[in-house]
Amino acid sequence: MTPTTKPTVLVLPGEGIGPEVVGAARHVLEHVLDRAGLDATIREHAVGLPAYERTGQWLPDPVRDEIDQVAATPHGAVLFGATADEPIGELRSRYDLFANLRPARPLRALRDVSPLRPERLDGVDLLLVRELVSGVYYGRRRTGVDAGQRWAGQEMYYREDEIRRIVRCALEHAEARRRRLTLVHKANAIPDVFGLWLEVLAEEAPAFPDVEVRDMYADTMAMQMVLRPADFDVIVTSNLLGDVLSEITGAVCGSLGLLPSATLSPTGFALYEPVGGTAPDIAGTGHANPLGTIGSVELMLRHTFGAPRWADFLADGVERAVESCRTPDIAGPGSAPCTTKEMAAAVCD
Amino acid sequence: MTPTTKPTVLVLPGEGIGPEVVGAARHVLEHVLDRAGLDATIREHAVGLPAYERTGQWLPDPVRDEIDQVAATPHGAVLFGATADEPIGELRSRYDLFANLRPARPLRALRDVSPLRPERLDGVDLLLVRELVSGVYYGRRRTGVDAGQRWAGQEMYYREDEIRRIVRCALEHAEARRRRLTLVHKANAIPDVFGLWLEVLAEEAPAFPDVEVRDMYADTMAMQMVLRPADFDVIVTSNLLGDVLSEITGAVCGSLGLLPSATLSPTGFALYEPVGGTAPDIAGTGHANPLGTIGSVELMLRHTFGAPRWADFLADGVERAVESCRTPDIAGPGSAPCTTKEMAAAVCD
Ligand SMILES: CC(C)[C@H](C(=O)O)[C@@H](O)C(=O)O
Ligand SMILES: CC(C)[C@H](C(=O)O)[C@@H](O)C(=O)O
Repeated sequence: MTPTTKPTVLVLPGEGIGPEVVGAARHVLEHVLDRAGLDATIREHAVGLPAYERTGQWLPDPVRDEIDQVAATPHGAVLFGATADEPIGELRSRYDLFANLRPARPLRALRDVSPLRPERLDGVDLLLVRELVSGVYYGRRRTGVDAGQRWAGQEMYYREDEIRRIVRCALEHAEARRRRLTLVHKANAIPDVFGLWLEVLAEEAPAFPDVEVRDMYADTMAMQMVLRPADFDVIVTSNLLGDVLSEITGAVCGSLGLLPSATLSPTGFALYEPVGGTAPDIAGTGHANPLGTIGSVELMLRHTFGAPRWADFLADGVERAVESCRTPDIAGPGSAPCTTKEMAAAVCD
Repeated sequence: MTPTTKPTVLVLPGEGIGPEVVGAARHVLEHVLDRAGLDATIREHAVGLPAYERTGQWLPDPVRDEIDQVAATPHGAVLFGATADEPIGELRSRYDLFANLRPARPLRALRDVSPLRPERLDGVDLLLVRELVSGVYYGRRRTGVDAGQRWAGQEMYYREDEIRRIVRCALEHAEARRRRLTLVHKANAIPDVFGLWLEVLAEEAPAFPDVEVRDMYADTMAMQMVLRPADFDVIVTSNLLGDVLSEITGAVCGSLGLLPSATLSPTGFALYEPVGGTAPDIAGTGHANPLGTIGSVELMLRHTFGAPRWADFLADGVERAVESCRTPDIAGPGSAPCTTKEMAAAVCD
């Protein structure tokens, strides 16, 4: 599925460590495109705090107009850094970015960084597929006072079609990977909502006869991800449960700074961002880990550019780079940490 | 706070591995009470599947009547094994068992069983305080069909007083321990509900000036629990988030079979049960790990019997026992696993 039209990548660094890691990742992206002879239009815009300070808008109108346009093209993408708050929520729901893919595979050279014993990491290669535009995050909110007591409610809510598209997306990925899918739910406590997830899974699974399908309670999965992360392939779950579980996969790999993500809309428009946030404590030091963002570029090469070989090429560059060059979060005791820029340069080498 | 009246302990083994682990734990309880010269009334009743097969009721009326009576006495307790389904949910809400205490401290002799590198376990001593009778588990449920699409909703709901009593309970425990409390929430996605939790925490914390109070997003906590479990002391959170997070603490310790729990009601009536479930795969083999249930007896000695020294005495017996005797789930490679009964005998020795 090589693009028939030239992809457009909008680079939105945001704030905090966003500009640093996105700067490094953009450098790597341009390097790979150059090597691969792939063409793309790349444009960069301020969003979040720097945009607000200049224009009074977290997502300035001209930037939004441009994203609207790019989202309507066949191979549009956003490379996002980080913002503490808006506009990330607005972007997710405005462009129906429902399928959040969070792969986690510990790098060979970084086994010593994981809190897990090395033997537990053998064969770990997870893909967490998280529903991103519904569930309790977007449920009906109510507040009130009753007999002098304040109360608050927010509804966990799913519609059949919202579940179906994310389950299908996960089944497709499982089929193309190691053909195992685990649906994570809490149907013993939230029976209607997760009962519907299980029903939809039962309806969709027969179309993927090669995929071994099972389901697991969220609490059990939280434990198994730490005890036996190698037992799983693709995991699909709701917005809230996926949020919590994906950070466990980050912990298993050793640093949240390592985790990439791709979020796809039904049209193919996609947003790529590291799983880690703005990290205000290290912003501006030049030592943030760019690998989660560079990994997001790898996902972009795969999904938006349809260039899996160049994605593998980049992955290989990352594996080699971390043998000699590591930012402080993944530098073992005794080894001198490198900077964000040095890391990106090492990947390009 | 030595009991002024003799405690009554109702032993409800349930099904699956319940009868085996509860049998072992009851043996240990009687041994310690004997050594300590403490008096108690202990009675045992079938609930769950064995009760249903005999009487057609998961919680037979006479058993419920007796629990009602014991719950009304000053030092009543239940030692519960496991049931796949009812009556555990019914017991929790019928007796307002709102404060679920799930301590997790890896045993010294079992450091090799944890999936974590040994150095990460230094100083780990957590107490997870989970709200157990409200939240999304007990929220309003709705289902329907809209434009041909089924949908389902269940509301995450909390009232101020429900939050206040669990937050206070956690603050009290923190004050008596290492004086650090972390409230875990998801206020960036569920702002009213967890905003109320944060408000109540802000109202209650000043009464505990020695406790260092902070809050953390649930996803961040899920990661930190794996990366830096020693950083935390008492963690307080909602029903659903507590369910997921407590299994991570189980994973950190190496086996869910090790984790005990105590659930307290406002009257002092308490239910003690292992965190692990019925484990149908190993039920009847005689090799289930009784340490989670024996640990629950330790909590009973502390809370219901007001005998902390004897609780420590029992904890010490457990530490020594696992040096030589381990059920299969915690037997390292190469060591011969022991049975549930041998484990209990080793603890008594
Ligand atoms: C910022 C927050 C609302 C967000 C989420 O929970 O979705 C973040 O944790 C994430 O995982 O992208
Ligand atoms: C059986 C289930 C409803 C229960 C829960 O989620 O509360 C269990 O996982 C637990 O933690 O005791």
